[in-house]
Amino acid sequence: MPQDVRIAIDAMGGDEGPQMVVPGCALFLKRRQDVRFLIFGDESRVRPLIDADPALSAASTLVHTDVAVQMGEKPSQALRKGRRVSSMWMAIEAVKKGDADVAISAGNTGALMAMAKVCLKTMASVERPALAGLWPTQRGRSVVLDLGASIGADAQHLVDLAIMGSAMARIVLGHESPTVGLLNVGVEEIKGIEEVKEAGRILREAHFPNLTYHGFVEGDDLGKGTCDVVVTEGFTGNIALKTAEGTAKQIAQYLREAMGSSFLSKLGYFLARGAFNQLRERMDPRRVNGGVFLGLEGVVIKSHGGTDPVGYSGAIDIGYAMVRQELQAKIRQTMEQSHESRTSAAILAQATAPVPGDSGA
Amino acid sequence: MPQDVRIAIDAMGGDEGPQMVVPGCALFLKRRQDVRFLIFGDESRVRPLIDADPALSAASTLVHTDVAVQMGEKPSQALRKGRRVSSMWMAIEAVKKGDADVAISAGNTGALMAMAKVCLKTMASVERPALAGLWPTQRGRSVVLDLGASIGADAQHLVDLAIMGSAMARIVLGHESPTVGLLNVGVEEIKGIEEVKEAGRILREAHFPNLTYHGFVEGDDLGKGTCDVVVTEGFTGNIALKTAEGTAKQIAQYLREAMGSSFLSKLGYFLARGAFNQLRERMDPRRVNGGVFLGLEGVVIKSHGGTDPVGYSGAIDIGYAMVRQELQAKIRQTMEQSHESRTSAAILAQATAPVPGDSGA
Repeated sequence: MPQDVRIAIDAMGGDEGPQMVVPGCALFLKRRQDVRFLIFGDESRVRPLIDADPALSAASTLVHTDVAVQMGEKPSQALRKGRRVSSMWMAIEAVKKGDADVAISAGNTGALMAMAKVCLKTMASVERPALAGLWPTQRGRSVVLDLGASIGADAQHLVDLAIMGSAMARIVLGHESPTVGLLNVGVEEIKGIEEVKEAGRILREAHFPNLTYHGFVEGDDLGKGTCDVVVTEGFTGNIALKTAEGTAKQIAQYLREAMGSSFLSKLGYFLARGAFNQLRERMDPRRVNGGVFLGLEGVVIKSHGGTDPVGYSGAIDIGYAMVRQELQAKIRQTMEQSHESRTSAAILAQATAPVPGDSGA
Repeated sequence: MPQDVRIAIDAMGGDEGPQMVVPGCALFLKRRQDVRFLIFGDESRVRPLIDADPALSAASTLVHTDVAVQMGEKPSQALRKGRRVSSMWMAIEAVKKGDADVAISAGNTGALMAMAKVCLKTMASVERPALAGLWPTQRGRSVVLDLGASIGADAQHLVDLAIMGSAMARIVLGHESPTVGLLNVGVEEIKGIEEVKEAGRILREAHFPNLTYHGFVEGDDLGKGTCDVVVTEGFTGNIALKTAEGTAKQIAQYLREAMGSSFLSKLGYFLARGAFNQLRERMDPRRVNGGVFLGLEGVVIKSHGGTDPVGYSGAIDIGYAMVRQELQAKIRQTMEQSHESRTSAAILAQATAPVPGDSGA
C-alpha cells in the first residue's frame, strides 16, 4: 500500500475562493481516499465548509492565515504582501518543506508563478520553468507548453520544454514515448524563427529517451491532435490557447443563436438535447482544468480561477497523477540522459571535426 | 460613371486551377459589371471555360502562358522558373505596368508573396509588406495582420501594420476611425515583448488620423471582435489563424458526431436543419476568403487555394473594394501624416530635452 498523497491547497484562490475550492476537495475525496489535504486559508470561512463534509474533515488539516493574494494583484505586489504569510505562498512552501507532495491553487497565475519560482527554485538542469496544459483534440488530449510562464525561448529552452512536456505526457496519456511537435508556420522558406529550426535539429539528432520527435506542426494540428506534445514559447502558446478558447465560445454562441431562431429549430434542439449535452460535455473546459508548472523543484498545479468544484477536482486529479507517477523523477531522468547524449554528441562532433591545418586531402 | 476596375487573374493558381478560378470570375460578374478581366493562363484549358460564359467572354482578355507556379514549390524555385513567364508573375506584372488595378491569385502563398515583393516593390514608407485577412467575430468581422508575410516585427513595423490595417478596415468595415488592438499576453508584469509595449506607447501618444488605439488585446478578443483591427507579427498571427481554423473544424466534428449518435438526435437534426444550415453559413470560410498584401506598390489579393467559385468571387469582391475605395491612397495618406506627427514628436522631444550641462536647477 503506497503512502497517501499529501496535497497542499490554497483555499483562498479563485473567483469564489473557499466556496468553490473546499467542495472541490470533497468531490475529489469521493473518487480517491489515499490522500491527505493540508489546507491554507481564513479559518472563519474555511472551517465551516470543511466541517460540513465529515470525510473531508477527517482527511484534512487546516492552517489559518488571513492573508490572501488578490486576483488582480501584480506578482511583485503579491510577493511583497504575501510572501511567507499568504495562503498561496504557504501551500507552495508546504511542498518545499516536504509537508506536501503537490500544491494546488486557483489564484492569480502571475503571482503563483512568481511565488513558485521564488519559493521552490528552478531545477538545476532547467533554464526556466514552464506552464503546460492539456489541450482537447479530435483524437483525445495533447500536452501543450509553454502557455505563458515566460516570453521568448532559445533553441535549448524549446528542447527543455519538449523533454518536460513528454514527461508529463507519459503520465497523463500513458504513452511510453510520446510524439513531440514544434509549433511553426507553414510558409516555405521562411519556415519560422531560427530558434525553432535549431531546436528541431537538436531533437531530430539527439534521440532522447521517451520522446519521439515528429517535426514541425502548425496551428491547426493542435485541434487535430497530430502530436502528443506540442512545444512553443510562452507568448505564442498563450495566444494560441486563448484564440482557441475564444473560437470555441464564438461557435457556441453561433450555435445558440441558430437553435433559437425558429420553432422547428427549437423543437429539433429539444429532441436532440442528449446530443447537445454530449457536445457540451466534450467542449467543457472543466474536463481539462489544471495547468502544470514544470521545471521547478516541486509540483505546483494551477486551476482556472473561474472553475467550479467539478473543475477544481479535475485539477486535483492532475496533481495526484503527477505525484503518484513521479513527474519530477521522469523529468530528471530524461534531462540527465539528454545531457549525456548532448555531451556525447559534442564529443563526437569534436572528434570528427577536421583538425585545423589538416586539409583532409 | 467611374472607369471599370481592371482585374488581373492568375487562372492557374489554386488546387483546381482554371476549373475553379474562371467560374469564380463569371460569378463575380453577375454581381458587378463595371470590371474588365485580364486573365493569364494556359489557353487550351482556360479559353473553353471563358467561352462557356458569354458575359465573361465579353469582359475578358486572355493572355496565354504555359508556365504555372506549382502549389508545393518553394518561393525561390517559383521565382527561378516563373519570373516573367508564369501566370502568377504576369498577373502581378500587369499591375506594375498599369494594365490592371489589382492582381488576384489562389496560388502558392509563399511564391505569391515573393513575386509580389520582387515585381511591385515595397512602398517607400513601409519597412516590409504584410498579409491581412478578415476574421469572423461575434460582432461581425475584424482585420487581422500580419498572417505570416514576415516573421518578427520591431515596434515601428507593428505601428506600420496598425496604419495599414486601419486603412483596410476603413474600406471593408466602413468605419472612419477603426479601433486598433495589439495582440499580447495577459499575464501581468511580463505583459509581452518589449516591441509590443513600445508600439503601444507610440500608438497611444501619436494620435494618428483614422485610427483609434484601443490598447492590448488577448487571443480570445479575436473571436469576440473587441477591435476592428488586431495587430501582431507574422509568426504569432499565422499560428493564431490556423489555431482558430483548427478549433472550428474540431467543434464541427464534435457536432457531427453528437448529431449522429442516436435516433432522437438525428430526428432533431432533421427538424433543425435550417438552423444548422444557418450555422454552417456563418462558419463558412468562403465568407471571409481573400487575404490582402499590404505595403506594396500595387494591390495583390491571395485567395485560399482550396476554395470554390463562390469563395473565389469573394476574393474578387475584396480586390474590387480595395481599388474602388483607394486602399493605396488611404495607406499613403495616413503614412505621410504619421511621419509628420512622428517628426514633430521627435522635434518636440529634442526641443524640450534638457540641454547637456544645464542641470535645469
